Amino acid sequence: MEKEKREILLVALGGNALIKKGQAGTVEEQFENLRVPISQIARLSKRYRLIITHGNGPQVGNLLLKQESCDRVPKLPLEILVAQTQGQIGYMIESTLDSEIMKQRITPQRPLVSLISYVVVDEKGPAFRNPTKPIGPILTEDEAIALPHPTIKTKKGYRRAVASPKPITIVEKREISKLIDMDFIVVCCGGGGIPVIREGRSFYGVDAVIDKDLASAKLAKEVNVDIFLIATDVRGIFLNYDRPDQKYLNTITVTEASRYLNEGHFPEGSMGPKIEAAIEFLEGGGKRSIITSIATIEDAIEGKGGTEIIRG
Amino acid sequence: MEKEKREILLVALGGNALIKKGQAGTVEEQFENLRVPISQIARLSKRYRLIITHGNGPQVGNLLLKQESCDRVPKLPLEILVAQTQGQIGYMIESTLDSEIMKQRITPQRPLVSLISYVVVDEKGPAFRNPTKPIGPILTEDEAIALPHPTIKTKKGYRRAVASPKPITIVEKREISKLIDMDFIVVCCGGGGIPVIREGRSFYGVDAVIDKDLASAKLAKEVNVDIFLIATDVRGIFLNYDRPDQKYLNTITVTEASRYLNEGHFPEGSMGPKIEAAIEFLEGGGKRSIITSIATIEDAIEGKGGTEIIRG
Repeated sequence: MEKEKREILLVALGGNALIKKGQAGTVEEQFENLRVPISQIARLSKRYRLIITHGNGPQVGNLLLKQESCDRVPKLPLEILVAQTQGQIGYMIESTLDSEIMKQRITPQRPLVSLISYVVVDEKGPAFRNPTKPIGPILTEDEAIALPHPTIKTKKGYRRAVASPKPITIVEKREISKLIDMDFIVVCCGGGGIPVIREGRSFYGVDAVIDKDLASAKLAKEVNVDIFLIATDVRGIFLNYDRPDQKYLNTITVTEASRYLNEGHFPEGSMGPKIEAAIEFLEGGGKRSIITSIATIEDAIEGKGGTEIIRG
Repeated sequence: MEKEKREILLVALGGNALIKKGQAGTVEEQFENLRVPISQIARLSKRYRLIITHGNGPQVGNLLLKQESCDRVPKLPLEILVAQTQGQIGYMIESTLDSEIMKQRITPQRPLVSLISYVVVDEKGPAFRNPTKPIGPILTEDEAIALPHPTIKTKKGYRRAVASPKPITIVEKREISKLIDMDFIVVCCGGGGIPVIREGRSFYGVDAVIDKDLASAKLAKEVNVDIFLIATDVRGIFLNYDRPDQKYLNTITVTEASRYLNEGHFPEGSMGPKIEAAIEFLEGGGKRSIITSIATIEDAIEGKGGTEIIRG
């Protein structure tokens, strides 16, 4: 009696889906940019059950800047700012997808929700002893010294440094699983999720940010996603990226990818965690893992673009 | 074969569930305050299917203040700030409820989600011709003149004025209905919902705020809620409120309430829309409509507190 269910596709949208390099990030720009991936995702909703996750780097940076400029209202901790960006970007993605589905007259119109998501991390883990993730505005040395938080020196100057702990579990995994079962399109895990620790019978937010690709891979495993696709600002995996001898890879095995990762081939804050996430997904039993650009999501699923990481 | 389904209860939490009068509104205060209504709602989840809506006045005011203090990042329109408060408050309510359900060892633990919600309004309606809802900080006359928005003179000084249009429909009503059917607890319609207009096949956000009680009443009708409860900072409906001859009402009929409303008995920005919302709910076929304080939600449902608005 049971009808064959469509495969589950998780698309993890990079920050450039909303704000491109060099843009200030007005709302108009963000909605305009979103149409590129979302018009593809609207079509994909015919063939796949869908989960959409997204980054929040520039948006959370802007909220930090705003609150640091204002002494008239209480400062909010980072996990609340992440929650605010989930509201903002969840709304932008959901309403753009809603509009695209109507415009393209896609039927049936699947139910569509954007969920607040929080993600358990380990406060005793190494990430909290040595915060390494730069966030927020670039600071002068004096500003860095005055900041009541750890800072880190980057190429462009000092920035606030926060812990970037590994995701342990997505608190809403049971809910997301049920929704996917019922054919909902689900937007969730924004910005890698709101980081929380569990103490006995309570959850507490912590000052940290979780890598959105690692959180997405964790979710993908927890809800049995079939295809895990990371959409970013390059067309796939390169060796020697941005050098004269750069080499594009159509496919790469888990073994090769792990070796290149260990050899430091991929920058830590960018391609590194994406490849790590892709490997974790496949090692956890996932079927297909793809890294591609925002503009070529559909092509990459057809095998006509992007880099596919394969078992072996 | 069908098991009798539990009644559906919608609790609309007022702003004071998070920030009490006189408080600055730190995160610690907001989580602490939330425990009063949420510990009751956790117990109610055993007997009712549950929808929780909430206000966002102080939170959206704070976001406005922060962004007005900062010229380094693009200003976001009001609908995006409302979306941000849905993320923030949705997370705070959901995590507090999660913790309370675990602490009280309530079983079964119903699935629990906080949804981004947007609400269609009529841009050609009267609300947009004459913005009357004061929001954000209190301004001097000079600041008011300099502001690129309409302003309004209140008792305390000038404030920005925005349209407060009537909610026409909750975009996610179909989704919320399905979730309630499946026994999910749903947090939604925060701050009255993100106001959007529908133009052909697209949604566009508009600069407005929707009254959260009117939006909650609309949702309650659209998803067939049984009990509509508004939790606020007073214990129910008073005639001549805050005067020596004030009179508390245990029950009031729709006819009486409508007459008092028309006679201007209830302040426009506060008890007025709550009573209007309660009436709309009952006239739309709802069973029970209650206005009570944050501290007495359970009692009021038992008929031991609050004001019940009744048909007739």
